[in-house]
Amino acid sequence: MAETTIVEGERRMVVAAIDESEESIYALKWCLDNLIPARDANTVVLLYARPVTPTYSMLNGAGYLFSEEVLASMDRYSRDLANSVLERAENICRNYDNIKVEKKARSGDARDVICDTVDKVGADVLVMGSHGYGFIKRAFIGSVSDYCARNAKCPVLIVKRRA
Amino acid sequence: MAETTIVEGERRMVVAAIDESEESIYALKWCLDNLIPARDANTVVLLYARPVTPTYSMLNGAGYLFSEEVLASMDRYSRDLANSVLERAENICRNYDNIKVEKKARSGDARDVICDTVDKVGADVLVMGSHGYGFIKRAFIGSVSDYCARNAKCPVLIVKRRA
Repeated sequence: MAETTIVEGERRMVVAAIDESEESIYALKWCLDNLIPARDANTVVLLYARPVTPTYSMLNGAGYLFSEEVLASMDRYSRDLANSVLERAENICRNYDNIKVEKKARSGDARDVICDTVDKVGADVLVMGSHGYGFIKRAFIGSVSDYCARNAKCPVLIVKRRA
Repeated sequence: MAETTIVEGERRMVVAAIDESEESIYALKWCLDNLIPARDANTVVLLYARPVTPTYSMLNGAGYLFSEEVLASMDRYSRDLANSVLERAENICRNYDNIKVEKKARSGDARDVICDTVDKVGADVLVMGSHGYGFIKRAFIGSVSDYCARNAKCPVLIVKRRA
């Protein structure tokens, strides 16, 4: 059994995928309250996937569609948003003892960013909210949580609010 | 925050969906080691979904396809299997303190049986393994864990073995 599980007192590495939604904050709190015993030292990696912003000006018939100023401003907005979301999550973690918090904002498709990070940090568990995409959207692109539940190389806890 | 989470010392209701696979036993152990703090009293509902067996004799051109004896024997086999799987899981739970175990075997499609039971017992969390169905099978019928992650009315922990 030692091979398959984490023994008491061992440091756990938890990756919590965070976005702007209340649901992801709820998932983080649920995990802190239920998954992480106060007696153990744990590391929580707060992970925010930033959508990729275009890095060059684009042309259309009428000239520049996005000027460099607009691109820079989009990029700044995206960074500010990432910081604000991660800081909010970090503040929540401060209410709990014995937790070391790491913040990561990485650009890319959320599915790849999350599964990649789980792999790189050697996560023991991934925690995330479940987004209520409608049937059509889910049928074609699948939800981020569906994808991660299948592909992340560790146990996945999907937390949604009770109906 | 009290509204959204389970407070320390409160009794947790965990539903663990169990089948014949080693993966579901691994999921149960992971949950007992990581999700259930020994200081709290918890109830673990071990749930086994029995495939539906035909309950009447079927005719084909040559006469009875399944005689009543065969049906009775299939049913007996299915009950024995359920008991054996549930007993094995119960023995694992005995290694942990402060856990009240309930065993349930219910007939029906695993997806419906699991989501229904979660609802009925007011589960705080559902724990299950994730089956490695191939792409084709999953594309058409979806896996049980995919379905439950979307439809169960509580947080869902999907545990798979590390690659």
